[in-house]
Amino acid sequence: MKSAVVLVSGGLDSAVALAVARRDVGAHGDGARALHALSIDYGQRHRVELEAARRVATSMGATHRVISIDLRAVGGSALTAAIDVPKDRDADELSHGIPITYVPARNLTFLSIALGYAEVLGSRDLYIGVNAVDYSGYPDCRPEFIESFRQTANLATKAGVEDHDAHARGFAIHTPLMMLSKPEIIRLGVSLGVDFSLTTSCYDPDSAGRACGRCDSCQIRRRGFGDADVPDPTRYAAEAGRHERGGS
Amino acid sequence: MKSAVVLVSGGLDSAVALAVARRDVGAHGDGARALHALSIDYGQRHRVELEAARRVATSMGATHRVISIDLRAVGGSALTAAIDVPKDRDADELSHGIPITYVPARNLTFLSIALGYAEVLGSRDLYIGVNAVDYSGYPDCRPEFIESFRQTANLATKAGVEDHDAHARGFAIHTPLMMLSKPEIIRLGVSLGVDFSLTTSCYDPDSAGRACGRCDSCQIRRRGFGDADVPDPTRYAAEAGRHERGGS
Repeated sequence: MKSAVVLVSGGLDSAVALAVARRDVGAHGDGARALHALSIDYGQRHRVELEAARRVATSMGATHRVISIDLRAVGGSALTAAIDVPKDRDADELSHGIPITYVPARNLTFLSIALGYAEVLGSRDLYIGVNAVDYSGYPDCRPEFIESFRQTANLATKAGVEDHDAHARGFAIHTPLMMLSKPEIIRLGVSLGVDFSLTTSCYDPDSAGRACGRCDSCQIRRRGFGDADVPDPTRYAAEAGRHERGGS
Repeated sequence: MKSAVVLVSGGLDSAVALAVARRDVGAHGDGARALHALSIDYGQRHRVELEAARRVATSMGATHRVISIDLRAVGGSALTAAIDVPKDRDADELSHGIPITYVPARNLTFLSIALGYAEVLGSRDLYIGVNAVDYSGYPDCRPEFIESFRQTANLATKAGVEDHDAHARGFAIHTPLMMLSKPEIIRLGVSLGVDFSLTTSCYDPDSAGRACGRCDSCQIRRRGFGDADVPDPTRYAAEAGRHERGGS
């Protein structure tokens, strides 16, 4: 593998996916310039994650590009429209159904953009930190979706068609976290040197960028660190408040 | 069919696709509100087409939305990067290979955005004016790409998954122009009341929005009107110049 394009959101999972890509590229590539982090500014309410994505990419020696698409004009999700982010849902609620934070066709759109970027760069390897275990409610995080996208990608592009004609392998879509639990993802990240303090997972951070600790994503992240027996470096709004009170 | 989302570029083909969708929806839908035109502002150098798209949508009684995505940050095409648009290519050049005006993964990205928009609107019918006859060089205009996208779309979305569970048909991707020649497309448009003077096809229009008459798209359009024996309402830069000289 010569180079890779990695979708990096600024969250925990994509930081680990980037670390895996760095490992995969590192053995055969020409170092830092072979690793390309791509973030999408889609009008998300948790835009602080774009800054986190830049920090994560820099820490891994990757290039970083942000492409803007105004998905607010599409609407239909608590992440982009004027819909409240759900808080304090219990484990049963977290594990069933498709949440309101689902953004219609988001991963398909992001992968399509990443595919075009990879084609321009001459890369044939895309990485995305989707996971079918903790986020079972999202249809676009399932293996069957990824495999279908791979087939479509190799029909959609000049590079895919030419590779096919030449019996090359075409584009590959790597999902190294697909079947891992959150604690397993965290431990994999630790083993690959990921600095999780650079990442942010919260759907609804406060103005200082501190995590709410209560949305689905915060709950899953918090429990993951606990189950992995790894210290959670996240700055939570409630804890920060307690700390400030304690320090006064 | 209750409603449709139609990708409308402002060009000739997508205007005819919109007219076909209007016909298909009209018999069963609730009129104008069932027809949704979607245009993508992707940083194209021929941005005058977005204004044409609005005119076309309005003329058909469709809603019109523009979603912005900065594909200039991806680069790699004469339509979005600082690469000259080829001019005066002959028929042999026009019919072979993938042109530099190919935008990496463009139709895949546009269809993905349209899919998310359709999911939010509750529509299951997407229309795109792709054509495998005149634009054989574009991989993302082929029937096998469209069929693969349809499968991916029904795995990528909440609506597609739920329809599948309920044995509903899921999303359909309509390509009414796929196998038509340019003269056939023009004649179909005439029969459905398309006002082609509202459309623009040029990749490199002048500052007044007049077509260059020499890029691939202009050549194919011009020849199409000739072969269809339909008057070409296009305002070409050179002709306008002759007209102005003639009138002085």
